Amino acid sequence: MKIGVIGAGRIGKVHIKNISLFVPELTIKTVADPFANEQTEAFAKQFGIANVTKNADEILNDPEIEAVAICSSTDTHAKYIIEAAKAGKHIFCEKPIATDIPKIKEALEVVKKAGVKLQIGFVRRFDHNHRAVYDMVRAGKVGKPHLVKISSRDPAPPPIAYVKVSGGIFMDMMIHDFDMIRFLAGDEVEEVYAAGAVLVDPAIGAEGDVDTSIVTLKFKGGTIGVIDNSRKAVYGYDQRVEVFGEKGVAIDVNDTPNTAIFADANGTVGGTAFQIMWDRYEQAFVSEMKAFAKAVANDEEPQVTGLDGLYPVLIAAAALKSLKENRPVKISEIDA
Amino acid sequence: MKIGVIGAGRIGKVHIKNISLFVPELTIKTVADPFANEQTEAFAKQFGIANVTKNADEILNDPEIEAVAICSSTDTHAKYIIEAAKAGKHIFCEKPIATDIPKIKEALEVVKKAGVKLQIGFVRRFDHNHRAVYDMVRAGKVGKPHLVKISSRDPAPPPIAYVKVSGGIFMDMMIHDFDMIRFLAGDEVEEVYAAGAVLVDPAIGAEGDVDTSIVTLKFKGGTIGVIDNSRKAVYGYDQRVEVFGEKGVAIDVNDTPNTAIFADANGTVGGTAFQIMWDRYEQAFVSEMKAFAKAVANDEEPQVTGLDGLYPVLIAAAALKSLKENRPVKISEIDA
Amino acid sequence: MKIGVIGAGRIGKVHIKNISLFVPELTIKTVADPFANEQTEAFAKQFGIANVTKNADEILNDPEIEAVAICSSTDTHAKYIIEAAKAGKHIFCEKPIATDIPKIKEALEVVKKAGVKLQIGFVRRFDHNHRAVYDMVRAGKVGKPHLVKISSRDPAPPPIAYVKVSGGIFMDMMIHDFDMIRFLAGDEVEEVYAAGAVLVDPAIGAEGDVDTSIVTLKFKGGTIGVIDNSRKAVYGYDQRVEVFGEKGVAIDVNDTPNTAIFADANGTVGGTAFQIMWDRYEQAFVSEMKAFAKAVANDEEPQVTGLDGLYPVLIAAAALKSLKENRPVKISEIDA
Amino acid sequence: MKIGVIGAGRIGKVHIKNISLFVPELTIKTVADPFANEQTEAFAKQFGIANVTKNADEILNDPEIEAVAICSSTDTHAKYIIEAAKAGKHIFCEKPIATDIPKIKEALEVVKKAGVKLQIGFVRRFDHNHRAVYDMVRAGKVGKPHLVKISSRDPAPPPIAYVKVSGGIFMDMMIHDFDMIRFLAGDEVEEVYAAGAVLVDPAIGAEGDVDTSIVTLKFKGGTIGVIDNSRKAVYGYDQRVEVFGEKGVAIDVNDTPNTAIFADANGTVGGTAFQIMWDRYEQAFVSEMKAFAKAVANDEEPQVTGLDGLYPVLIAAAALKSLKENRPVKISEIDA
Repeated sequence: MKIGVIGAGRIGKVHIKNISLFVPELTIKTVADPFANEQTEAFAKQFGIANVTKNADEILNDPEIEAVAICSSTDTHAKYIIEAAKAGKHIFCEKPIATDIPKIKEALEVVKKAGVKLQIGFVRRFDHNHRAVYDMVRAGKVGKPHLVKISSRDPAPPPIAYVKVSGGIFMDMMIHDFDMIRFLAGDEVEEVYAAGAVLVDPAIGAEGDVDTSIVTLKFKGGTIGVIDNSRKAVYGYDQRVEVFGEKGVAIDVNDTPNTAIFADANGTVGGTAFQIMWDRYEQAFVSEMKAFAKAVANDEEPQVTGLDGLYPVLIAAAALKSLKENRPVKISEIDA
Repeated sequence: MKIGVIGAGRIGKVHIKNISLFVPELTIKTVADPFANEQTEAFAKQFGIANVTKNADEILNDPEIEAVAICSSTDTHAKYIIEAAKAGKHIFCEKPIATDIPKIKEALEVVKKAGVKLQIGFVRRFDHNHRAVYDMVRAGKVGKPHLVKISSRDPAPPPIAYVKVSGGIFMDMMIHDFDMIRFLAGDEVEEVYAAGAVLVDPAIGAEGDVDTSIVTLKFKGGTIGVIDNSRKAVYGYDQRVEVFGEKGVAIDVNDTPNTAIFADANGTVGGTAFQIMWDRYEQAFVSEMKAFAKAVANDEEPQVTGLDGLYPVLIAAAALKSLKENRPVKISEIDA
Repeated sequence: MKIGVIGAGRIGKVHIKNISLFVPELTIKTVADPFANEQTEAFAKQFGIANVTKNADEILNDPEIEAVAICSSTDTHAKYIIEAAKAGKHIFCEKPIATDIPKIKEALEVVKKAGVKLQIGFVRRFDHNHRAVYDMVRAGKVGKPHLVKISSRDPAPPPIAYVKVSGGIFMDMMIHDFDMIRFLAGDEVEEVYAAGAVLVDPAIGAEGDVDTSIVTLKFKGGTIGVIDNSRKAVYGYDQRVEVFGEKGVAIDVNDTPNTAIFADANGTVGGTAFQIMWDRYEQAFVSEMKAFAKAVANDEEPQVTGLDGLYPVLIAAAALKSLKENRPVKISEIDA
Repeated sequence: MKIGVIGAGRIGKVHIKNISLFVPELTIKTVADPFANEQTEAFAKQFGIANVTKNADEILNDPEIEAVAICSSTDTHAKYIIEAAKAGKHIFCEKPIATDIPKIKEALEVVKKAGVKLQIGFVRRFDHNHRAVYDMVRAGKVGKPHLVKISSRDPAPPPIAYVKVSGGIFMDMMIHDFDMIRFLAGDEVEEVYAAGAVLVDPAIGAEGDVDTSIVTLKFKGGTIGVIDNSRKAVYGYDQRVEVFGEKGVAIDVNDTPNTAIFADANGTVGGTAFQIMWDRYEQAFVSEMKAFAKAVANDEEPQVTGLDGLYPVLIAAAALKSLKENRPVKISEIDA
């Protein structure tokens, strides 16, 4: 099956490489990026891709191309989803679909009518550790989840320019965890309460955002959850999940590049955490794309659906409202 | 220095044994318990204690006795603190001082006037693991704390009869964690938000209590914290703390009775957690009593003061109000 | 039951304290030490022991005393075992019984004729971690042991004065591991091969001893084992055992004083190992003495018998011969 | 640079895939295998390789091909090394070069004269965990190594047909560890002592081989080492190394596919080990081929030289002699 990739920035390049090397079911015919240049062409050529264009329509109008991977800037996701769906193409789209809820709904509606597959790029669902916890939960080992906990911390805050436009910590960072906590709990969030603080960088506060946050979530079925985020963990990526239930607890320990330890009179020193997100989730990016290829090939529901793209945005919006009004906010206040 | 022990129930017996075996600075002259019987006498005799009485006044009026350990039922703590302080005796008192805030304040006032030492039995402060985390935080390794997290889960819920009178999960269980989080953060709580659920036993819900809870806490200095409690962890006591800050993170892994592991085709199995609270905190009960003896002997401020007995009760009351009203509650609403 | 303690040096004091505090079945009537002085008396008095003497006969001839704990210097162990046995007293004796094999056999013969209990102080058998591995092996979890491995390293070498008289690394240090490996394997050693080197301190080599050694052991039933020793592990006591068999592997991780870890950009640092042997095996010293009291009280075979005192010495002698002749040596060459 | 692959069995296919996907510096022009068939062609085609032949000469005589990867059966390694070297091609060759020592030396001589690069496929040197230990040792963290220990156990024994021709446990299995221990110690082995047993399968013993072994190694510089091997670890691949020295100890914990754990009343269960060698060393196979490409491109000494291919065979031969004669054997007895 031929696929086109829209957007050849950092994440686009990762998908181009992964599809080319590891997903033989998919062949990239065309790469489109408004800023495509000689470097883009050289990159594409490495993987045997001849067509590089500035115009996404060359993908959207190409009858030979059956699927698109949307890796462009967030503000264009919904637009490309709608156009690709109307063109009858299956869609892999990076998260979030949009930060504007009606726009997400419109896109999902078009996808639904078109009957194409849509998979959202919540890549952490495919991480080997988180997935192992998920598998134990779904296999019933934990029983009904009582508490779901996520720690998710980045090594360093993004540039302030990004903070200005990203939608804030809930929309650009914790959104991954909102997806993960729904995934692990196997239930929908009903209400959230967000506590936040500016402890890492006052410039983040100056933009009206927080850099440290704890969000409590109540699920419809009674489970309660909590997520903590920090923009700056000096020890690197810290990504741990925990599902505690009536029959036991499943936890993943933070991943490290190796298992070597060293002991002397100062203690026993184990490996540092990952410092680079792409290293930490290298395997997961491959797995999500294989899953997309498989869903399309087998005409199956993708593992991360369009609704999975909507709900975390609703939760993020509720968290933001909660933070501002310092009170618990129901999802139904955001989306009645 | 001679000490009298008021209350010879489970916790009283632990202190009697520990003082006798491990705290040579203290000699128990008298044990008083309204239900004292032959068994009590036999227990006391083991440790060379001849005087066993039903009347606490035999301790309070004995000029030779310089200190008392109050291990009686919670509703009598404040009364005995007041009487002991008026009699000029140093006081070790089990937590909580009372669940009634004015009564606590009255007791603390009397203690202050009397100029005696008062140490409250927040035993977990003396646990080797939690203390190691605390020491790292106080040594500045973590820098300013941004997030403080506590998981604290019991192996099984207490009897419903106890739930009826205990003051509920915040007052009888999470109170330890309210103390611990203040201890670790090195700051005072300003506001709390409590989410709770009845997931373990509906009978607990029938008493108006919850058995599963996540409480978010905002500290005066900006640190945010979170505590999760469950009345039932099938794998045993789960007691972990984490302090995350600008310079790093200090964490303690849950304690186990031994380090042996076994691996076969089913995985690698490590030791179960402790099943019995007395085993889990065996060393800590000894350490707290040694600390009390040392504080009195050296005329030093005890490591857990009377105010340390007050604040967790204020937080518990705020948490209860928060749970009931489903909104964040400031400590100042409880204690202006 | 009344017991006398012969030898009030470091190990004697540990047993005096432990019996007094934790073994109510035993009451120390008399402590004998040729160097007993005021300090010894003061120490004994702490635990309510009035009789302190320079003359061990006051114990051996006291009809009221039913058991003795022999904690004197190694060269006197066999003599006191013989005298105590002839006096009809049950015996706890520190290891080794002697380094001279006929002397050990003579002592065991007298014990046998006298029909008294004899327990040898191989304290590590009672360590919570090693015991948990042992219990798994004996419960059949591992199946038939194929490989048994022990790492056993001390924080620092003993004084050279001690090295001169101790009998060398096999007799004074690895002897614990020879006992442990028999205990874990549940079988007797048939042949050993010792490799050794002087890598820590040339002064140890000057005494004809080695400070680093790997000894391979073949057991009668086919199991093979290996022990490594070093006189100097800069990170503290390192005591790990591993039993690998047809059904799985049981391992104990080295013990640490606490479970706290700290992570920053330099890695994740866990607790240092124990630096002091008495701290590392604190619980084990208590457990072995309780076991002795129980064996005597219940008229049971002690958990560490007289033969358990003989075999490690045979293995140590074979290891020494192997090291000197650089060839595998059968135990039958030492003891036909 | 164009490369030819000789041998398209299991290991050959791994290298074909890895070169094609991950080593852009190398382009496979031709694959030769005497049993090449349609399946081989289909496999090659996946990676864009058009030339598949039964005749290795098509590679050896092709002037366009600058390097060969020899992945054929062990008995042909030396022959192809010689032919390739004479043809002036750089060589990556799977281990062992041969089990016949003069044949190895002859091959190395031809390589030397030809001035081509030769890298031997000791893949474990490139494993992320072992490499991290190695890096710490080489960085001087451990100081002079005193003890080097390797545990290396396979999930299941190979077929008896393979045991008959493989050269035995030392030549086909422990040979990896002989390489690794030299690599870690940074020194050459002087003498070995091998203990072995047939504990897994009597059929292995019937072939004159053992399935369980402990080998002690003395290095020229004084370091002592020990390797244990078992043909059957029911829990999967067990690959751990440890370097203990004057300044500390570096250890790698056995690798697992994920970090998830599950705790209930039966204990805390961590991930099983890898069951498939190709999964365990997936990353290492890629890294070794990248290292080969880099060495050739930069005209550098390969990380695993021809002598690194010789020494482990000498050690294996000495170990075999030691096992048969039950005595320590010097390497100089094998290769004077």
